[in-house]
Amino acid sequence: MEQKVGKGSLCYKEPPFILSSASVVGTKEGEGPLAEEFDCIGSDDKFGQDNWEAAESSLQQEALTLALGKAKKKPEDIRYLFAGDLLGQLIASSFGLKRFQIPFFGLYGACSTCGEALALSSMTVAAGYADYAAAVTSSHFASAEKQFRFPLEYANQRPAAATWTVTGGGAFVLGKKQDESGALAKITGITTGKIVDFGVKDSMNMGAVMAPAACELIAQHFADFSRAPKEYDAVITGDLGLVGQEILLDLLREKHVDIADIHQDCGIVIYDNQAQGTGSGGSGCGCSAVTLSARYLPKLASGEWRRILFVPTGALLSPVSFNEGASIPGIAHGIVIESIKEDCERRS
Amino acid sequence: MEQKVGKGSLCYKEPPFILSSASVVGTKEGEGPLAEEFDCIGSDDKFGQDNWEAAESSLQQEALTLALGKAKKKPEDIRYLFAGDLLGQLIASSFGLKRFQIPFFGLYGACSTCGEALALSSMTVAAGYADYAAAVTSSHFASAEKQFRFPLEYANQRPAAATWTVTGGGAFVLGKKQDESGALAKITGITTGKIVDFGVKDSMNMGAVMAPAACELIAQHFADFSRAPKEYDAVITGDLGLVGQEILLDLLREKHVDIADIHQDCGIVIYDNQAQGTGSGGSGCGCSAVTLSARYLPKLASGEWRRILFVPTGALLSPVSFNEGASIPGIAHGIVIESIKEDCERRS
Repeated sequence: MEQKVGKGSLCYKEPPFILSSASVVGTKEGEGPLAEEFDCIGSDDKFGQDNWEAAESSLQQEALTLALGKAKKKPEDIRYLFAGDLLGQLIASSFGLKRFQIPFFGLYGACSTCGEALALSSMTVAAGYADYAAAVTSSHFASAEKQFRFPLEYANQRPAAATWTVTGGGAFVLGKKQDESGALAKITGITTGKIVDFGVKDSMNMGAVMAPAACELIAQHFADFSRAPKEYDAVITGDLGLVGQEILLDLLREKHVDIADIHQDCGIVIYDNQAQGTGSGGSGCGCSAVTLSARYLPKLASGEWRRILFVPTGALLSPVSFNEGASIPGIAHGIVIESIKEDCERRS
Repeated sequence: MEQKVGKGSLCYKEPPFILSSASVVGTKEGEGPLAEEFDCIGSDDKFGQDNWEAAESSLQQEALTLALGKAKKKPEDIRYLFAGDLLGQLIASSFGLKRFQIPFFGLYGACSTCGEALALSSMTVAAGYADYAAAVTSSHFASAEKQFRFPLEYANQRPAAATWTVTGGGAFVLGKKQDESGALAKITGITTGKIVDFGVKDSMNMGAVMAPAACELIAQHFADFSRAPKEYDAVITGDLGLVGQEILLDLLREKHVDIADIHQDCGIVIYDNQAQGTGSGGSGCGCSAVTLSARYLPKLASGEWRRILFVPTGALLSPVSFNEGASIPGIAHGIVIESIKEDCERRS
């Protein structure tokens, strides 16, 4: 297979490895279904800082520190750092990662940023530009509410379609080769999303904004790679939530693509929505990152799963454009992650 | 020479070409020294839109449309689009570029974003991931003042160290090969910047924030490539302005690097500071982009110049972190651009 496939995908000739990953989350995430799987749960959502933005920076700093430790790497071993968050001018990333002194590419793809960072870091490593690169993303419930909606002190009510921004930071160390400490999985290809705007204007229904972008990305992916859903153990979207999931599955059926049996959504699995009052589910740059690290990479590392399509989804919402009455465009980025367990490869 | 050089640079084995570029600017820039060189000067800074953010989106849309036309390419010929701006959640880029329907990577590096976009697009083309890619950035005086400082209606006074955000959008089409329509220049290497924080907290003195980052980048570049300043016709920073230029030259002298004879700054050349009242000079993501396109690429295309180091500089300023009393970190990205005129190559 060629390196460039279809209209928007790459299939790596030498797939880069995910050497390590780490997840750091807040208290609410630590009370949810994935509690046992996260690397670190904060005892306080301020993470010892004076404000929410600095707390979010701590999430990135801690996540990258942990991921570097697991991969037995020092910051100076990492040639490029790809990172982003939801805040204006990416302050969670700038302030959280500046101390590592790694050449830095700041990214913004709303909640799809984890996919954008894994896409660009895998492209960089696969091209031979770096032996090691890292991808880091975060979100924080309180900094996001302040940025996009209302001050927490208002205690505003939330409609059922609203999602709950995950307090979490995830980091991934990618390498051209497996070292002595092994690897979790490999990234075998990517599908890069376009901006999709269905004209949705409801900032309390991000699932409806992102589902059309996820649908186009997933359909494009299967077309580009000439593969069927059954060739994947799971298609995992970032943070569509329950409302967005229903729309996605419906939209895909219109394109004669049925992923109902294998679809999972990080925003749905990260909370017990009923018990935790999180509406349609979790969201944010951190949601897909910590869930991939804590829940899904272990399934690939153990060989339980062979191949997934990981699709972080983003709503390109800004308080300024929203207040000006603009629609909210969406975007999604697809990453093909495969197991490196030999028994899995034999099965394939 | 190896592809990976030094600690933070790449030297392309097959340098990608800049096939075309375009610059679209506002009225003030159209009254400045580069008036004759820009592709398009708006007759009104709102560019026919209802608000400043939409006006900035128009800058990106027009610039990319022009650049595509010059390169005789359609949007569907471009495999990846790398773009960014200064606004929270990159709304100038999302709304300005969504209609092109090109797989999209959103970038944020403050005013260094033009460098970040040229770095990642050149990496992508040089790696063979795309035959064609495009890089687009913009800034708008009014949307930036609203985002970072004061409503224009306040008519606040500006200190002499303050810079004036350029209203402008620049676009560049990169290609793996020269087509029949030729090329302007080639990108032969990049040096990627780290986040540098000297603790400056004055949002009205961006030159002081960015000069240390530019200094580290330029010194790293010469070390990585084992080259001396005399091997370049010019080292061109993005928007240090008069204040930042002085700091940069001083800081570099401390490192025994003297670029005084060949240093130019897009922020200094774009306005007649005395006559136009632009303080220390121009700034913004659009400043370096439109100046590279209008002033510097023609010098390389004609063969007047052989090689430049283009260094867009960014101040990672956010109104939120600024109001919380945080410092303003800086970053810079270096792009080596060389002439493809044969007579130049013979001289080298």
